[in-house]
Order: sequence, then C-alpha cells, then structure tokens
Amino acid sequence: MPEKALLEQVVEQVRPLLGQGKVANYIPALAEVNPNKFGIAVTSVDGTTVGAGDYLEPFSIQSISKVFSLTLALTLYEEHEIWSRVGKEPSGQSFNSLVQIELERGVPRNPFINAGALIIADLLQGRLGAPKQRMLEVVRALSDNRHVVYDKKVAASEYQHSARNAAIAYLMKSFGNFNNDVDKVLKNYFHYCALRMSCADLSKAMLYLANGGKSLSGDLIVSPIQTRKLNALLATSGLYDGAGEFAYRVGMPGKSGVGGGIIAVIPGDMSVCVWSPELDKNGNSLAGTAALEILSQSLGRSIF
Amino acid sequence: MPEKALLEQVVEQVRPLLGQGKVANYIPALAEVNPNKFGIAVTSVDGTTVGAGDYLEPFSIQSISKVFSLTLALTLYEEHEIWSRVGKEPSGQSFNSLVQIELERGVPRNPFINAGALIIADLLQGRLGAPKQRMLEVVRALSDNRHVVYDKKVAASEYQHSARNAAIAYLMKSFGNFNNDVDKVLKNYFHYCALRMSCADLSKAMLYLANGGKSLSGDLIVSPIQTRKLNALLATSGLYDGAGEFAYRVGMPGKSGVGGGIIAVIPGDMSVCVWSPELDKNGNSLAGTAALEILSQSLGRSIF
Amino acid sequence: MPEKALLEQVVEQVRPLLGQGKVANYIPALAEVNPNKFGIAVTSVDGTTVGAGDYLEPFSIQSISKVFSLTLALTLYEEHEIWSRVGKEPSGQSFNSLVQIELERGVPRNPFINAGALIIADLLQGRLGAPKQRMLEVVRALSDNRHVVYDKKVAASEYQHSARNAAIAYLMKSFGNFNNDVDKVLKNYFHYCALRMSCADLSKAMLYLANGGKSLSGDLIVSPIQTRKLNALLATSGLYDGAGEFAYRVGMPGKSGVGGGIIAVIPGDMSVCVWSPELDKNGNSLAGTAALEILSQSLGRSIF
Amino acid sequence: MPEKALLEQVVEQVRPLLGQGKVANYIPALAEVNPNKFGIAVTSVDGTTVGAGDYLEPFSIQSISKVFSLTLALTLYEEHEIWSRVGKEPSGQSFNSLVQIELERGVPRNPFINAGALIIADLLQGRLGAPKQRMLEVVRALSDNRHVVYDKKVAASEYQHSARNAAIAYLMKSFGNFNNDVDKVLKNYFHYCALRMSCADLSKAMLYLANGGKSLSGDLIVSPIQTRKLNALLATSGLYDGAGEFAYRVGMPGKSGVGGGIIAVIPGDMSVCVWSPELDKNGNSLAGTAALEILSQSLGRSIF
Repeated sequence: MPEKALLEQVVEQVRPLLGQGKVANYIPALAEVNPNKFGIAVTSVDGTTVGAGDYLEPFSIQSISKVFSLTLALTLYEEHEIWSRVGKEPSGQSFNSLVQIELERGVPRNPFINAGALIIADLLQGRLGAPKQRMLEVVRALSDNRHVVYDKKVAASEYQHSARNAAIAYLMKSFGNFNNDVDKVLKNYFHYCALRMSCADLSKAMLYLANGGKSLSGDLIVSPIQTRKLNALLATSGLYDGAGEFAYRVGMPGKSGVGGGIIAVIPGDMSVCVWSPELDKNGNSLAGTAALEILSQSLGRSIF
Repeated sequence: MPEKALLEQVVEQVRPLLGQGKVANYIPALAEVNPNKFGIAVTSVDGTTVGAGDYLEPFSIQSISKVFSLTLALTLYEEHEIWSRVGKEPSGQSFNSLVQIELERGVPRNPFINAGALIIADLLQGRLGAPKQRMLEVVRALSDNRHVVYDKKVAASEYQHSARNAAIAYLMKSFGNFNNDVDKVLKNYFHYCALRMSCADLSKAMLYLANGGKSLSGDLIVSPIQTRKLNALLATSGLYDGAGEFAYRVGMPGKSGVGGGIIAVIPGDMSVCVWSPELDKNGNSLAGTAALEILSQSLGRSIF
Repeated sequence: MPEKALLEQVVEQVRPLLGQGKVANYIPALAEVNPNKFGIAVTSVDGTTVGAGDYLEPFSIQSISKVFSLTLALTLYEEHEIWSRVGKEPSGQSFNSLVQIELERGVPRNPFINAGALIIADLLQGRLGAPKQRMLEVVRALSDNRHVVYDKKVAASEYQHSARNAAIAYLMKSFGNFNNDVDKVLKNYFHYCALRMSCADLSKAMLYLANGGKSLSGDLIVSPIQTRKLNALLATSGLYDGAGEFAYRVGMPGKSGVGGGIIAVIPGDMSVCVWSPELDKNGNSLAGTAALEILSQSLGRSIF
Repeated sequence: MPEKALLEQVVEQVRPLLGQGKVANYIPALAEVNPNKFGIAVTSVDGTTVGAGDYLEPFSIQSISKVFSLTLALTLYEEHEIWSRVGKEPSGQSFNSLVQIELERGVPRNPFINAGALIIADLLQGRLGAPKQRMLEVVRALSDNRHVVYDKKVAASEYQHSARNAAIAYLMKSFGNFNNDVDKVLKNYFHYCALRMSCADLSKAMLYLANGGKSLSGDLIVSPIQTRKLNALLATSGLYDGAGEFAYRVGMPGKSGVGGGIIAVIPGDMSVCVWSPELDKNGNSLAGTAALEILSQSLGRSIF
C-alpha cells in the first residue's frame, strides 16, 4: 500500500506531461473539461483509500463503465450465455470499428470494445426491468457512495452523436446477435458511460477485482475464479488497441475511458484509479498511463 | 512448487482429451509425430525440475523459439531499435496473415507472430556473424543441455514450404522494413523453429522469465525490468489469436508452438512446459492448454 | 430488333437452367415467388416492344430501382453534388458490405450498391416533398403504364428486416454523409425496391438509356452525355460483384435485382429486360444472365 | 477516323494540364523521363495511322504489356485453364494490394492488376521455352515494327525494386496458385513491362482489339468473340482503381501503364494510344485521360 506522499510525488512527476495529449472532443460535453486536472487514488485490500491531486473530483467514467456492466451481466447469466455472444480476444482494431464485426459475422471480439459492451447492454436489457436504475444501485454500492449520478447532459450529448454506435448495433442485429430495441439499449448504454465518479469512488468500486471478488463492504460480487477471469480480460483487452503497450509499461490489468480515467488492479493487493483528461493516440489517458507506470516501478509491483 | 504426484495426476486428467485436436500437417516432418504423446515439466526458481509423462522426449519447439530469438535480440540492440520495427500489440489476426502488414505499412504487430519473428531474425542476421550457431549456444546454455540440436529434416521441410513466410518477408521489404537477404534469413529462421527440445529442457530454459532474468546457471540473461516486459508481451500476444482465452483459462504469460509445446510462467515462482501434439483451432496444443488450466487451478496460482 | 420468334427461342434455350439457382429468401415476401417464371422483353429505339414467356407478369424490381432513383437525382442536382457523396468505381465487395464504407470514411463506391443507393435516397429526400409519390410518377411515365404500384407487403417485409441497411446508413451518418432521418429514408428506399413491374414495363421504361436520354413518349429525361455516363456506370458497377463476368459474357450495360430481373441496354439500338427468380452466387438472375448472353450472340450485338 | 488536325487540336487542349500530375518514381529509370512529353496516335480499321505531338517517341509501356501477355496466353491455353487461376472482376483495391489475394485464397481478381499479370506470366512460363523472346516477336509483329526492344535498364531497375511483386507471387504460391520459379517469372515479367514502344507502335499493335481480332497485317490473333471478351475485361478492369471514372469520362475499353501510356479502343472503328508521363492519383496518365475524353467527345464516339 503506497503512502499518500508517494502518490503526491507521482502527481508532481507527471505534471510536465499535461498539454501533450488531446482531450476527447467527439461530444461537446466532454470537450469542455479542464485539461489540467490530475487525480490518483489507491484502495488497499485492507479497505483504506489514499489519494492525491484532484482525486475527489467526479469525472465522466465513460468506458470504465464496461467493467461494471460486464460484472453485472456475470451475476445475471451463465457464462456460456455471455461468451456465445461476445468473444474474449483482443480486437487488433480501433474501438469503434465495424470491419471485424462484419468479417466475424456479428460477434464482437471482447466486451470492452463498443460493440461488445453493446452486447452486454443488450443482455442487461433482456433480464432487468430497469437496467439503468439497477446499474446505478450497483455502482453506488461498490463505491460506497450514494451520491454517484448519471450526467444527463453527457448522456444526451452522446445520444445526439450516436450514429456510429447505432451502426454497430444494427450490424450485429443483422447477424441475429442483438435482441432488444436498438434505440432503447443505446439510451441506457450512454447513461452507463455518463456515470460521474471520482478517482476515490472508482478505486473503491474496483476493489473487488483486487480482492477475490469481495467488495469494500464485504459483499462477494463475483467468485474468486470469476475475478481472475475478469482481470485476465482486462489485461488482454482493457486498453483498446494499446493493451500490449500498457501491459509492457504498467503491467496491471486495467480499463480506460475517453473521459481520461484509467482503473488498474494488482490482484491481492490494491485497486488504483488515475484521471487526466488528455488522451494519447490510442484514446488512453496520456499522463494517467505514465502515472501508473511510475507507481508500478516505485512499488516494484506488477503482475509480471 | 508442485510435487511430481500432482503432475502425474494432471497427465491422467488430460489423457481423455487426446484424439480431440489435430496434429499440424502443413509440413510432412511435423505430421509424422505420435499424436498420443503428453509431457509436462516444471522448474522452480529454486532450480529443481520435476516432470511427468513424456517430459524427457524432445519435440520440435517451433514458435516457442520466438521467445529465445527476441531475448537474444534484446541483448544485442537498444529497445528502440527493436520497437521501431515491430509493435507490441495483439494482432487480432491469424499468425501468418499479410493483411495487417499491408494496412500498417510493413510493421508487424508483435514479435510472436511470424512477421514479427522474421523482423527479429533479420535483426539477429544484421548483428551476428553466425546467428544459427549463436542461437544454438544460447539455447544450450539456458537449458543446461549441450545435446540440443536443430532437426535438419524439419528445417529443410519448412524451407520447402516457405512461400507464405517468403511473401511476408518480401512485403515488409517492400515497405523498407527488412534489411538482409530474404532467403538467408528464412533459412536461419526455419532452423530456430526446428530446435528439438524436451519439456524438461524448455522449462529449465525459460526459468529466467520466472526469475527476474536469471537463468538456471545463475547468469543474468536480461534485466528484471526487461523480464517483466517479456512476460507482458507473452501475456498479450504469446498465444496467437487465442491470447485472451488462454489468459482467461490459464492466467499465465505463455508461448505456444505448432509442434504442440507450450511454455508458461508464474513470475517469481516457476516456469512450466507442456507438450501434446494435437492442436485446437487457434493452433495451440489442446491438451496442453487444458493441463495448464488444471495446474493453475490446483496450485491456486495465476498472475491474476 | 429481334423478332418475337427469336425471343421465344431464347426462352426455350434457357428453360433447362431453371432449378439451378436459388430464389432470394432474406425476406419472406420474396421467397414466395414461383421459381419457374421466365420472361423477356425488348423495346427498340423505334418504339416497338416484343416479348416472350412471362414478360407481362409484374415482379419485384428491387435493385433495378436504383437506376430510376439515380436518374431522378440527376434531374434534381448538379453532378458534383452527387459525386462528392458517392463514387463511380466498382466496389470489389459484396453489395451490402460495410468494410469499404468504414475504410473509405463514409463514401460508398457507387450508386448501385446498397450504400450508394441510400445516399441517392437521402438526396431525393432532401429535395422532394413527397419522394415516394414522385418516384412512382416518374416510373409510370417512363413505362407508359399508370398501373405500376408499390408492393406494400414487400416494402413492409423489407422494413422488418432492415437492420443491415440501417447499419449502413448510420455508419455513413457517423461520417457526416447522411442528412435526413435514417428511418424515414429507409422506408422510402424500401418502397422504391418494392415497385412491381413486368419485363415489358421495364424494357419500355429503360428505353431512354438506349435512346440518348429520350423516353418512349419522347421526353428528354437526361441529356445524351448523361445517358452515356449512366450506361458507363451500369457497365462497370451494375451487376454487384459480377460486373466483369457480365461484361465478358453479355457485353451490355445492365442492372440486376434480387427479384430476378435484369435490365440491359445496347445504346442506339434497344433496351431489354429479362426475369427469372433464381439467382447465381453473385445475386444475379442465373437464367436471365444466360438469356442475355444468348441474345447478344444471336444478334451479334454488344458494346464491345 | 480523326484527321491529323483534330489530334493536333487535342494536343493543344491538354497542354495546360502538363505539370498537374506526378511522374512515377518508384524506380529511378522511370523517374528520369521528361514530364512534358505528350503524344497521341490513332489507327483506323482501314489500316491507316495518324498522330500528333511526340507520337513517334518510344516510352516504357509498363502495364500496357498486360494486354499482350493475356492475348498470348489466350492463344496457348483453353479459356478455363486461365480463368480457374485468375478472375474477371474489378478489384476495388490498389493495383499492388495483397489483401484481396489473401482473403480470396490466392486467386487475383483480374489479369490487369499485378497479381493477375503474374499469373499470366506464370502461365506463359509454363508453356513457352523462351517466353521473353516469344513476347518480343508477338509485339513486333502486332506493331509491324522490328525495332521494338526491351529496355534492359528499366527491367533491371524494376527487378532491384521487386519486393512487392515477389511478395504477391509467393503469397499466390502459398495457396498453390503459382507453378514456376518466382524469380525466373519475375525477371520475364519485368521485361514485358520494360518494352519500349511509341504511340504509333501501340495504336497499330492494338488494332486487333478494334478489328474483331485481326491485326494490322491481317492475321487473326484471337477470335471475334475473344476480342469482345478482351474489350469487356479492359472496360471493367483496365484502369486500376479508376475504371469507373474512365468509363464515365472516356467511354472506351482501355489499359494504362505507369509510364504514362494509355491504349483505348472503339470496337469496329479504331485503336488509340496517348502518352503523357504525369499520372493522376489512380496511377493513370492525367493529360492522357483528358485527351481521350476530348477525342471521344469530338468524335461523338464511345461504346455507350
């Protein structure tokens, strides 16, 4: 478990990188964020959380929500019901590409690219009466924070720019791999992405991945073996088309979002969340990745 | 460190799987192998090796040699000289595909697909007077076995069926990413693939990956940080287009070969080698993967 | 101008081919057609029409409607307004592929694949108050048949199976190359495809392509130079991924539909329509193509 | 048949375009050409040839040679022996792409892209003792010019930059669609491309395509039906990835080469050759295409 002083040192070390990346601008609501923000929080398996920088400030978690939705799906479905509809392999393509989905007849590569996350959202829609409400309850419970909310403005903005995701969903539907109304699923999906959480919220919420499936409050969210499998998927597919580079530099299973957040995990030890809005060419937080690399080296810890 | 009895138990558990896969038959010399062979060996960081089944019988290591050649290249070149010519990302494509190489202008995705391994072979050719001889020395030293040899018949047979690899090399050359004579590099490359080693040889030889870069004889082959990076690359790209599934089921960095061998590593703990000639649809040993999954669960050990 | 007897002879010659193709079955309404139908009609530039077989029986013209919609667009827009949004090249891909549209950033290859025809439908939507009504008027005037109608059942059936076309439209929208509401455009597009016309109707309606732009009733639909250009596009892109084979065997500009119809033209001479519901592997009428090949050879006429 | 005055007028009209394209520079020997050259020649089915500009100056015919090699193959093989190894469809891809060859398992789209021409060269190699010598005899006879030669310097230069074509040939070999030694076939192929001929030579040599298969000297090179088929292939695949645009603007079957030459044909009427070294983005002569467009409009002649 790192001391607060170490995290503050990491913040100082990455500050010179601010200005070198590019804030996501495909929707106006995301482009408005202050690019100089940087936060880091660590939650240990002993339940304590320390942070530095803007670690208490909520931001748009975007694709980090894909970890929550997959976890929720794992509690609702048998594994084969999920893995018959979405794969477990790295995509080797951009996060929103349709090429592979067409070539592989409607089955997306993994649950962490948009297409795969839409399959998971379709699964949630199929078994939950009010998936949006349920997701919020799950996330509030995991982060032990009843104030986590959806950013309605971001969700609405994403919906207004939803053509690419609609194309992906309809393409999968054309192959028989989408069951619910596309529009309804998209609206919920964009809400999941529009969750606002801080680094502290997220490092707490992800603790179950570091703790054999047990959440901060002691609930068993998923089994130890399922936790291992979630971490394996994160390690191979969690960072879009930059998973190899992330493993090489950071050496932790992780998941990034275009809001600039990245969560990462050292199984048996701790969960981490960093946030810095500027992204690298793969769409992962530039300074955030650097901070995780420094943290990993300072602690001498990685999964490898 | 597993007991011999545990390994023998694993052998019994996977034996019913023999007959369900398919021996590689693209070259006659490989197709002749007895499909019912199964071996497993584990070398602990304390230097001891235990094995079960046909673990002392040499087989064609094929693509497992890509680990040795990358390791050797890391001792000859600065990192940037390597990573400017080959990437670190999973390919999302078949191991011998040319599509991505054309789309990405001659730079292969990672050093463990054929294209990337040919770049590494081109690098070795560029700096070594007798790369074939040097590779043999390296492998003999790592495995502590002076009797490791190239199978000349296999190397010759691969060379006779080398059209696909020649196409890959010439395509990279057309983008300016291949320096030496294609034919000469191919001949050496096929020799690396044609190394004959047993599970015992390979688990010993790979110990440095589990031991912070230190080999069985105590030599520091690569630095601890380089070792971590090698393991990261193996975890994301070592199993062709089945890396995600392998991480999900086995949870160890690993590398497979079409000869039916797979090496895997638990950093800080042990290196493993399994061998069973029949392959699954991704070209990885079917019973070998199952054995590693059982071993991982029995020991309660994985990197996740 | 062929005699009726020659056309009857063609019908006899192709009859043995019935049973060798496959009726389109992606929508139930099309699958119900009698597969043994065969009709052929020829309209000469002198204004006379002859036919044989089931040449007076209406069928679903499907993609043949793409010729009408492009022609109508040419009367409403400047050429550059059309060709900045859709290309003029053969696609080299299946008629409903999304791969090329993603790789070429939302611009479809030509107006005769689905994506390109959706762009044309979007253009019509943008300039016409009631495009569906206007298209019907155009087609009735061209064919000199006030009884041409939309098959509401086919249009509804296509709309129920519209996921692939919706995916294509949304993908183009995500690249900024689709202006109107996707759902509204799709509904109109499916109506165009659901026009019911006979071989006689279609050979008459297409006469302007053989007659320098002048229709059966003497109206100048498009200019002589535009007519030449339409025929050029038909010759290179009118037969899906079988344009080369069609040019090789038949040697006329043409357009096929999955309803089994094919129209073809010998500029300065005549327009032809054949109909036979069973399709070859490229989705073109099998017996229809054969009939056109025989006709071309019998008359010693082709554009080559 | 156009008068010499008309051709001189065309030369004047296109002269302002010189400077707007880009001379092929992938081999030094081609890059040295004077970019301001422009020639045009027309040979009528009555046997007369007229020309203007630099129409008597030899240039490197490059891919125009693919017409001669396919024609020669048609005299040596049954049609099915050719079309089982190469297709008849437009490629929809760059002239030297490997993507389609891999996806379509070693069968190139048509004989006018590099891959297809290499198949034809492999066929010639398989049936001729001295294919290079025979090709030269054929071309000399067709053009009625005993002084046509191979440019040894160009052939050698192409061979030194042959990596891409070698990759293509080896890839086809890996699918079992290449019979002879790759290196030997490449050497001959580059000689065919390195033929030096003038516009006058080429318009004379291509007369058989306009004349039902009969050459200038009256020999029947191919049958009338084969001639029609050759013209159909040229119309759909002769201009690389610009066949649609060329048909749209010029309306003649044609074949271009990166040396800046284009041959085109009006069946039953005349063969044309233009030459201007600067190319457009598709690799076709920029001013040459414009000249053919003007000629087509001036004469009021096209196949459409």
